[in-house]
Amino acid sequence: MLAAENGRDPRLKAISDAIRVVPHFPKPGIMFHDITTLLLDHKAFKDTVDLFVERYRDMGISIVVGIEARGFIFGPSIALGIGAKFVPLRKPGKLPGRVISESYELEYGTDQLEMHVGAVQPGERTIIIDDLVATGGTLSAAIRLLERFQAEVVECACVVGSPVVQGECELKEKPLFVLVEPHR
Amino acid sequence: MLAAENGRDPRLKAISDAIRVVPHFPKPGIMFHDITTLLLDHKAFKDTVDLFVERYRDMGISIVVGIEARGFIFGPSIALGIGAKFVPLRKPGKLPGRVISESYELEYGTDQLEMHVGAVQPGERTIIIDDLVATGGTLSAAIRLLERFQAEVVECACVVGSPVVQGECELKEKPLFVLVEPHR
Repeated sequence: MLAAENGRDPRLKAISDAIRVVPHFPKPGIMFHDITTLLLDHKAFKDTVDLFVERYRDMGISIVVGIEARGFIFGPSIALGIGAKFVPLRKPGKLPGRVISESYELEYGTDQLEMHVGAVQPGERTIIIDDLVATGGTLSAAIRLLERFQAEVVECACVVGSPVVQGECELKEKPLFVLVEPHR
Repeated sequence: MLAAENGRDPRLKAISDAIRVVPHFPKPGIMFHDITTLLLDHKAFKDTVDLFVERYRDMGISIVVGIEARGFIFGPSIALGIGAKFVPLRKPGKLPGRVISESYELEYGTDQLEMHVGAVQPGERTIIIDDLVATGGTLSAAIRLLERFQAEVVECACVVGSPVVQGECELKEKPLFVLVEPHR
């Protein structure tokens, strides 16, 4: 996991401070990092988007992918900022056109992520955005969806790396960039 | 329903053209207006956000509310553009903090929309964003949530007014601004 240069950029502390921790959500033991409070701090929210835009604007990215639902809050602004298209990945049954889907494991059972056929072209340089990462299972499914159309996934990016209950993030396929570390 | 000045602004035609109609989604008879194709046209997507920003930037709006999930795609960029905060309204059980909720009617049964307590303050001028409007039931529930905290809902705004199967949009409480008309 690549973290932003902590403390070097003065904007990062205010971003971290604006993220609220809600203990035991969605289940006991999880310290949920809630980005809705960040969205109420206009400057910190703008700085968050700006930091991603500064990182990705000269990397030839043509597609920003966002994962439902909180990836939709950050991905489109980043796409607009770097001159890229935005592609939403959604839960089953939500996208109206023809889709491909990938499963990923939950603690009990599995869930799926869907992408519209035709949303990406072979060779397109892509980043995948979500608000936080725990085990990385959703991001891995997103990478598999994009690679089925030969898109080039450059990096996954999250606002905050969330501590998981057991084990660390297992995303190994691609670099993972996290803007701020989880609260201690 | 207030529509944008059709045809006057040359950006509107390209936005309308970039929205795909998927017949019979999510059920027979509905001509679903799919904004995911708009997101693949960087200029049309940027123009969409710019047109909302131009409309709202001098109206003293401090809160942009977006309705899960496609309202999240447009609302945050508009909020960043006009210097406002962004407040997501979500399906039950998704927001981690203390919430209030409002029900709205579906064809069979009801659904709910939730908002974090503390997200808005009394008197704050607010706009509510979604991608499309059909009967207006979800927007009405959103208005009720905001008014429970004495926020001032100035207007609801959607990218496209979707034709409904039976009847017209029934949103009467507040003005509704729609950027482009549904396809004929």
